[in-house]
Amino acid sequence: RRIMRPDDANVAGNVHGGTILKMIEEAGAIISTRHCNSQAGEPCVAALARVERTDFLSPVCIGEVANVSAEITYTSRHSVEVQVNVMSENILTGAKKVTNKATLWYVPLSLKNVNKVLEVPPIQYARQEQEDEGKKRYEEQKLDRLETKQRNGDVIFPVINPEPHTVGYSQSSLIHLVGPSDCTLLGFVHGGVTMKLMDEVAGIVAARHCKTNIVTASVDAINFHEKIKKGSVITISGRMTFTSNKSMEIEVFVDADPFVDDSRERYRAVSAFFTYVSLSKDGKPLPVPQLLTETEDEKRRFEEGKGRYLQTKAKRQAQMQQAAQQ
Amino acid sequence: RRIMRPDDANVAGNVHGGTILKMIEEAGAIISTRHCNSQAGEPCVAALARVERTDFLSPVCIGEVANVSAEITYTSRHSVEVQVNVMSENILTGAKKVTNKATLWYVPLSLKNVNKVLEVPPIQYARQEQEDEGKKRYEEQKLDRLETKQRNGDVIFPVINPEPHTVGYSQSSLIHLVGPSDCTLLGFVHGGVTMKLMDEVAGIVAARHCKTNIVTASVDAINFHEKIKKGSVITISGRMTFTSNKSMEIEVFVDADPFVDDSRERYRAVSAFFTYVSLSKDGKPLPVPQLLTETEDEKRRFEEGKGRYLQTKAKRQAQMQQAAQQ
Amino acid sequence: RRIMRPDDANVAGNVHGGTILKMIEEAGAIISTRHCNSQAGEPCVAALARVERTDFLSPVCIGEVANVSAEITYTSRHSVEVQVNVMSENILTGAKKVTNKATLWYVPLSLKNVNKVLEVPPIQYARQEQEDEGKKRYEEQKLDRLETKQRNGDVIFPVINPEPHTVGYSQSSLIHLVGPSDCTLLGFVHGGVTMKLMDEVAGIVAARHCKTNIVTASVDAINFHEKIKKGSVITISGRMTFTSNKSMEIEVFVDADPFVDDSRERYRAVSAFFTYVSLSKDGKPLPVPQLLTETEDEKRRFEEGKGRYLQTKAKRQAQMQQAAQQ
Repeated sequence: RRIMRPDDANVAGNVHGGTILKMIEEAGAIISTRHCNSQAGEPCVAALARVERTDFLSPVCIGEVANVSAEITYTSRHSVEVQVNVMSENILTGAKKVTNKATLWYVPLSLKNVNKVLEVPPIQYARQEQEDEGKKRYEEQKLDRLETKQRNGDVIFPVINPEPHTVGYSQSSLIHLVGPSDCTLLGFVHGGVTMKLMDEVAGIVAARHCKTNIVTASVDAINFHEKIKKGSVITISGRMTFTSNKSMEIEVFVDADPFVDDSRERYRAVSAFFTYVSLSKDGKPLPVPQLLTETEDEKRRFEEGKGRYLQTKAKRQAQMQQAAQQ
Repeated sequence: RRIMRPDDANVAGNVHGGTILKMIEEAGAIISTRHCNSQAGEPCVAALARVERTDFLSPVCIGEVANVSAEITYTSRHSVEVQVNVMSENILTGAKKVTNKATLWYVPLSLKNVNKVLEVPPIQYARQEQEDEGKKRYEEQKLDRLETKQRNGDVIFPVINPEPHTVGYSQSSLIHLVGPSDCTLLGFVHGGVTMKLMDEVAGIVAARHCKTNIVTASVDAINFHEKIKKGSVITISGRMTFTSNKSMEIEVFVDADPFVDDSRERYRAVSAFFTYVSLSKDGKPLPVPQLLTETEDEKRRFEEGKGRYLQTKAKRQAQMQQAAQQ
Repeated sequence: RRIMRPDDANVAGNVHGGTILKMIEEAGAIISTRHCNSQAGEPCVAALARVERTDFLSPVCIGEVANVSAEITYTSRHSVEVQVNVMSENILTGAKKVTNKATLWYVPLSLKNVNKVLEVPPIQYARQEQEDEGKKRYEEQKLDRLETKQRNGDVIFPVINPEPHTVGYSQSSLIHLVGPSDCTLLGFVHGGVTMKLMDEVAGIVAARHCKTNIVTASVDAINFHEKIKKGSVITISGRMTFTSNKSMEIEVFVDADPFVDDSRERYRAVSAFFTYVSLSKDGKPLPVPQLLTETEDEKRRFEEGKGRYLQTKAKRQAQMQQAAQQ
């Protein structure tokens, strides 16, 4: 449990999605590290491998208390699935509401040899179905991780004098030198720190495009293929890929440059899609100016984004119908 | 000297008591580490062993400057007593007022071997009485530390659907992964970091109970029996033990789980009582809803809290009478 | 690129000059460390040796995005000159303005042996003039660094019951324990961290003197002669040296006490002059109360400050005339 403090908030008073993502990951890292060390054997630290798609159901405001709870829901031989729930509580009224539900996958790395993945102590399931469903989720995410690993990395180039509402107009990037307070005991960046920076860049892109107050609506699945070492410089870049009437999709890349280490080149560490919405001063969704696509690549990415948007929309409607029928 | 910044403040603009406690401890750690290294010999770091009861005489507001001064007032063979004073200064009016007076005890630990307590260079006293009074304080705190070491640790369990104003309704806990920036050169958590987190939890408990703006009024003596190592997870839990007409007493526990270290179980590292008051928007004390006790344990703790409350009240009245007679 | 957050701002909403200085230094450290590691050889970290005089052309406000860009403009055998530009962008209006232009000098230190200065890979110049001008700047700063190294260190003593507007009335100091998050990979304090603390002290001195909202107007050249090691205690002290009608000059000293290291005494690590202006609520410059000098030393320092003030003023007028003629 944590009090949301003023420095975690954007100008209009909501808590940045990135702060919530960081809290979620901290909770996941703690519960899975604790579990993986629960049996005698080599000490280890759980490293984030993947976060499933996350929806931000309602914004958390300053002065509210965020309740984070976490549960281990599945274990494979080498990985742990954690379910994290975030509830926000208005202390003055006592009102609570669900803010986020997130699913994270962790892998235990040996404290003595960071390249060694240890075995995970198995959990007990109340019913056989739980294990079967967990196994299905495990196989699905494994497949998706393999696929995205091969996706080729794109680079964002600066544009001179871009027109408003084009991709070049709102694209943004920031650099960050990885310090000790960003890192785990193994000397690698916490997944939550990376996600917070990614949300920061995505937020700047969204704000530049629509020039209003914006909030994170959802984050697509994020895979952490490559560890980022202390002392690296990371470049986080974002560009808008798609707009619907009331939402913006932003693609974010994280590139790591371990420049004090001779043996490695700059590499793409993480990439993800963030969806943002624009809000009026009283918190109502506003229409979003349409993204102007210019190049063939931009048009292709817009269509791909539209595909993801329609797929998510269809899935949500199916869930609502299912819920209505029950 | 430090400027109090917006992120150190609660919603109504006062500076959190926990931030003041952290500043006090930083000052104490610096002056005692400097003193213990003032003679040739093994280099060492002073570790916090105990903080005496501290009253928050007046709240510090944002934009005010806090002046922290520290003085070594007694040395035993293996420990240092430091007196820290905090004054707040309104830069615009120049008005100053005493905010806190705190007494802390430190023990020098060798930088080469953390389990080795070194000898403290003796200080010179202006008068023999000063040494005698210091020795009396030293014996008293030693006795109290021994006593509280044996006090058995309690655990706070969650309550399903608690009624307002019961103990279960406001009890709270947070977890924190101990990172490098929380630690001293020896890799153990700064006492001030622990106290800041304790105050944060106590503040949430108090706010949940009375649903108003609240501030720290005092902290009872805190003993630091056990060091907490980098990489541990600490759980800070708080529950209300007693309410008077205008104050709330909250008991806070700190449990450490050094889960990457095979050789140790989860242990109780620190516990303490915080007293909070409820304030109206113009800073006047408000009546506090009475705590509803349900179990025998809760009723017993309420009576014990009442005992501490009456004892403190009597002590304060005796001091005021003494002051009036002088 | 970074969003300025509420905790980086002073009460009236502008971003502290110190935060800008820290961002500038981070950008400089990243680009020069990357450059010095661009050829096979010993890995190294670029350490800040000097910052040239910097003017704060316009304040950055909360909610604005600061764009920091950096370029290597000259390399000598053992040092790198970096030009950093800061632009602030109002996301809602899209308006951009130049906030700072800074020139920094870095020296590559070996990661394996911190006392070994490595060679810098040479850069290519578009025109011979660029190299010649760079060489001239290199020689000038080298001379200035040599000169200031010999300048004898002054100490600031507390004054009992000082009168308003005297030097003793506003002088201030703060202490800071150097933690891991303040340090580079080599375990020495980032130059940007030191500059941020220096600006904090200078701001307190300025606010105490004129009791209004104040902002950093410029910082004179700062030379970093001595590294400051993790675990040291640093004392940052500031005193006013000169006032013009609308500006205040504050001298700031940084003294390091490596007290867990037997072999070293407390030493003067850095010193610099900061210029502040006083602003009304709508951001207009206010007249500043004249500094009352009492001792011979204070009068001498006032005259020296006046010399620096007049020199800067003459230089700026010459530049404006030159610009008008072009």
